[in-house]
Amino acid sequence: MQLYQAPLRDMRFVLHELHRDDGFGGLARFEQFTPDLLDAVLEEAGRLASEVLLPINASGDIEGCRIENGVVRTPAGFREAYDRFREGGWCALAADPRYGGQGLPEAVNKLFEEMICAANVSFSLYPGLTRGATIAIEGYGTEDLKNAYLPKLVEGRWSGTMCLTEAQCGTDLGLLRTRAVPRQDGSYGVTGSKIFISAGEHDLTENIVHLVLARLPDAPAGVKGISMFLVPKYLPNADGSLGPSNGVSCANIEHKMGIKASATCQLDFDDSTGWLLGRPHKGMEAMFTMMNSERVSVGIQGLGLGEAAYQGAVAYARDRLQGRSLAGSRRPDLPADPIIVHPDVRRMLMTMRAYNEGCRAIAGWVARAIDAERHSADAETVRRAGDFVALMTPVVKALFTDLGFETANLGVQVYGGHGYIREHGMEQHVRDARIAMIYEGTNGIQALDLVGRKLGAHYGRYLRAFFHPVSNFIEANGQHPKLGGMVQALGQAFGALQLATATIARKGMKDPEEAGAAGTDYLRLIGLVAMGHVFAKAALIAVEKLEGGDPESPFYKAKLDTAAFFFDRILPGTMALFMAIKAGKESMMALDEAAF
Amino acid sequence: MQLYQAPLRDMRFVLHELHRDDGFGGLARFEQFTPDLLDAVLEEAGRLASEVLLPINASGDIEGCRIENGVVRTPAGFREAYDRFREGGWCALAADPRYGGQGLPEAVNKLFEEMICAANVSFSLYPGLTRGATIAIEGYGTEDLKNAYLPKLVEGRWSGTMCLTEAQCGTDLGLLRTRAVPRQDGSYGVTGSKIFISAGEHDLTENIVHLVLARLPDAPAGVKGISMFLVPKYLPNADGSLGPSNGVSCANIEHKMGIKASATCQLDFDDSTGWLLGRPHKGMEAMFTMMNSERVSVGIQGLGLGEAAYQGAVAYARDRLQGRSLAGSRRPDLPADPIIVHPDVRRMLMTMRAYNEGCRAIAGWVARAIDAERHSADAETVRRAGDFVALMTPVVKALFTDLGFETANLGVQVYGGHGYIREHGMEQHVRDARIAMIYEGTNGIQALDLVGRKLGAHYGRYLRAFFHPVSNFIEANGQHPKLGGMVQALGQAFGALQLATATIARKGMKDPEEAGAAGTDYLRLIGLVAMGHVFAKAALIAVEKLEGGDPESPFYKAKLDTAAFFFDRILPGTMALFMAIKAGKESMMALDEAAF
Repeated sequence: MQLYQAPLRDMRFVLHELHRDDGFGGLARFEQFTPDLLDAVLEEAGRLASEVLLPINASGDIEGCRIENGVVRTPAGFREAYDRFREGGWCALAADPRYGGQGLPEAVNKLFEEMICAANVSFSLYPGLTRGATIAIEGYGTEDLKNAYLPKLVEGRWSGTMCLTEAQCGTDLGLLRTRAVPRQDGSYGVTGSKIFISAGEHDLTENIVHLVLARLPDAPAGVKGISMFLVPKYLPNADGSLGPSNGVSCANIEHKMGIKASATCQLDFDDSTGWLLGRPHKGMEAMFTMMNSERVSVGIQGLGLGEAAYQGAVAYARDRLQGRSLAGSRRPDLPADPIIVHPDVRRMLMTMRAYNEGCRAIAGWVARAIDAERHSADAETVRRAGDFVALMTPVVKALFTDLGFETANLGVQVYGGHGYIREHGMEQHVRDARIAMIYEGTNGIQALDLVGRKLGAHYGRYLRAFFHPVSNFIEANGQHPKLGGMVQALGQAFGALQLATATIARKGMKDPEEAGAAGTDYLRLIGLVAMGHVFAKAALIAVEKLEGGDPESPFYKAKLDTAAFFFDRILPGTMALFMAIKAGKESMMALDEAAF
Repeated sequence: MQLYQAPLRDMRFVLHELHRDDGFGGLARFEQFTPDLLDAVLEEAGRLASEVLLPINASGDIEGCRIENGVVRTPAGFREAYDRFREGGWCALAADPRYGGQGLPEAVNKLFEEMICAANVSFSLYPGLTRGATIAIEGYGTEDLKNAYLPKLVEGRWSGTMCLTEAQCGTDLGLLRTRAVPRQDGSYGVTGSKIFISAGEHDLTENIVHLVLARLPDAPAGVKGISMFLVPKYLPNADGSLGPSNGVSCANIEHKMGIKASATCQLDFDDSTGWLLGRPHKGMEAMFTMMNSERVSVGIQGLGLGEAAYQGAVAYARDRLQGRSLAGSRRPDLPADPIIVHPDVRRMLMTMRAYNEGCRAIAGWVARAIDAERHSADAETVRRAGDFVALMTPVVKALFTDLGFETANLGVQVYGGHGYIREHGMEQHVRDARIAMIYEGTNGIQALDLVGRKLGAHYGRYLRAFFHPVSNFIEANGQHPKLGGMVQALGQAFGALQLATATIARKGMKDPEEAGAAGTDYLRLIGLVAMGHVFAKAALIAVEKLEGGDPESPFYKAKLDTAAFFFDRILPGTMALFMAIKAGKESMMALDEAAF
């Protein structure tokens, strides 16, 4: 049996306490949402996750999706769960009120996404892709398209997809072949074959709105010749009812390692009617609007699965009796002590916990920046928040999914042999988490985005949006009577990050392969420094609360303990990363291709 | 399609070149086996792996084992493959010639095991468990039992199992409940239920010989009251033919994450006839004889799967066209460059390669020690080799399986989305590799064995069997004109290992939880130092060969490149491990149990 209860206390900590001084300021738009109201939303969302989505997670994995004559069936219970999800207004949570959305902050929405992913990541992809499509249509659709599609998508009556990948091209979209031919009436005939389309075909919604990358007849070669089209499964009539089928067919669904309840489709478009989104040949721009939002959400998948794995592991570690504490029997009344007494089991649980809390804290920071970038009235704040989001998007995507996978694996390890069998659902978390390191741009691509695009942009401006708050924090708190040592350790790691940045900037200017060789280690390094920063901030708050005799002192003591573990056991990895980066590309590139 | 060709050149390097100065001396027993003969055996074994076992690996995963009315069926082709395996004499490769074995050195047998695991790890478990059972019967059986069982097991006509785990006890065998009641005729009636029994029931052999841990009526509580029994599925008649069924039934098989073609059985023993192996209540001793051998073999599983993943990834990286080299287009004749040009893809491939070559080199070293411990005529050598094997057994088991899993995951990552679907077989490697970190003692238990039992034994004597050759090597080669830097880096890591050892010895003496808290990081630390040692040795040989203008210079250049990568990118991890160990147990144990 899989377990999951939304970690509401830590979520409230991230939402209300940790980032109060984030420098982005309050947003008038959200003043209507009192903390009590947001807490109530989170509580309700937690119930939805535990009571509606969790119970069909393991069964969905076992049953998987099926295809018969092009019709895709989701596993038992998914249809009903989706109806409840939609009827509860959850599809609309963070969407624009102009189209029926509730307009809640991303800072809440990301916590909501974490819960949904923790309970059922396969399920999460159906509304998740819709949200990405909504963002792209909002950004690039004509008023007619917005009015025709957004209300249905926001309501969740229709769903969305991103149709990018083709058999010969995933990372390198410049190779794509799907073509779009303009018609007299302003629409386009879209023809081609797409693979790996999540939620490409299913039985949860009345219509599916595909956002398809394709080439116009006069398109330049490569990525500069790609346009984006909106192609519905059924063409809507003027009154919003569904008209004829639009030549989109599902040829097959994939047999995957995990997320088996998510239909991953091969879609064929046969002169299907589509409408241009954005400008001709500028589809990559529209795609990245959607993709960047999705990348943060994919990071959240890693976090959600990590939290689910953690909770499962804790329950088992409390319950399973094996051996005796090395410090002497703790439960002489039982035939053996629960395994949570063993240092190595604690090492695993604390690592999982630190990763989850650290990622959640970073996610909360980034989500507030997303909100500020979208809604702040202050141009400087919008710029700075946008810089921070641009920098952190690849970090959130790659760091969270790497750590989520590691955490899911630790969950299995705590269970021993019982983790490897289907019964407890721990191995499903591993299989489900594995894809997040790959889709929406592999984690290697995230690293390349970070060192290749983000570091150098505007002479390092994006980086400053992160470096400034960190260095200010270190300067302000390096002599803290209780936490000075922690802050100084952060300072050392931050120093290594600064040196690594300078090394990459210097070498990478002359030789882009040097930047490429450093990317993955650099992304992890910046991620660990960010995590150190949020843990040190959290520890500061915790110390204050504990000194003030806060009634919730167990929560704050635990926060402090987790921070200490992070600094003792995880942050030292930054030194190894720094040394690896310093070594440069030579030994990475030396081996002759023929010798592999 | 999965790919695998035995890496014969590197295997020959490990077998004939790398460890010539291992200090264990030559063994008269093996003089009959010329290098040419051994190479021919390896070549033939490679063919068996690629041509017989690999083709049924993916299909076996999809089909899995089935159980109907207690009868277990292996997937299509397994029976035929097993027959070919057996008829080819492969079951008998390393077994004692007294019972029909061919008596080849473990140094060859471990390479053979690597091939079998790379091609089909599920299959490997059927003969693998037999080998473990053979070792236990050789060590603890009466002459009658040896004569009745060993020839059949060595021939592979019968197979073996290890029946340890019960629902309430895995790691902590002291909790086991299966009981054995003595009978008048000297046999015992064994009754109880065992779970997670690999190859517990199947259709490959005529009989299955279970080695079962159980308690005698007068047994003291805990692990000091466990005895080992030989319990066949069918009772053999005096003439060796099969007699009646022995009350052993398979109640169920597990649904597992991977190794689906290996039947993992729940076995019920109902007053089944068994014979005592070894002394009453001393079953743990017999069990560990078998278990220690199995632990090294499980490590080899990690290596084998890592090699299979590497080969699959290299083939794809050469074939898949995406993007252009950061250093300028390499293949302007193609629509894009093969992804092997990208630094981050090379980072993954080089990491996989370094792990595989490093583990193979360590395995070769340990295998030679196993041979020397068993067969050397010199008592001092037997002692020293035995010390080295005792120390390295948990390291091989945990390090190789951790790295094998990481390598399998990198294999998926190189494939991107295509790695996550069933088609290429890369995700199967991940699922198959995951169990090796768990069974035959979780990797946390290996770490505890290392720091709790092995470090302190005989005042650190085991450790000296490793430290002496490493420090001698560093001293002898620190000023090497070409590789001095590499050897000095090894010296630094070795220094960290020595300090970590002293820290654990000092703290752990007073507080065993301190040793427990350090275990996993310490095991990785010693493992990386061992890998650094074998890579530096290999590099020395390579430099000599290259300076001598060896006709195989591409092989030696590749060896040197891989060693350089290891020292640049992987060895620095030792510093982080050292810092984590130094931090001690405090933050690991601080969190209140209720606060998790």
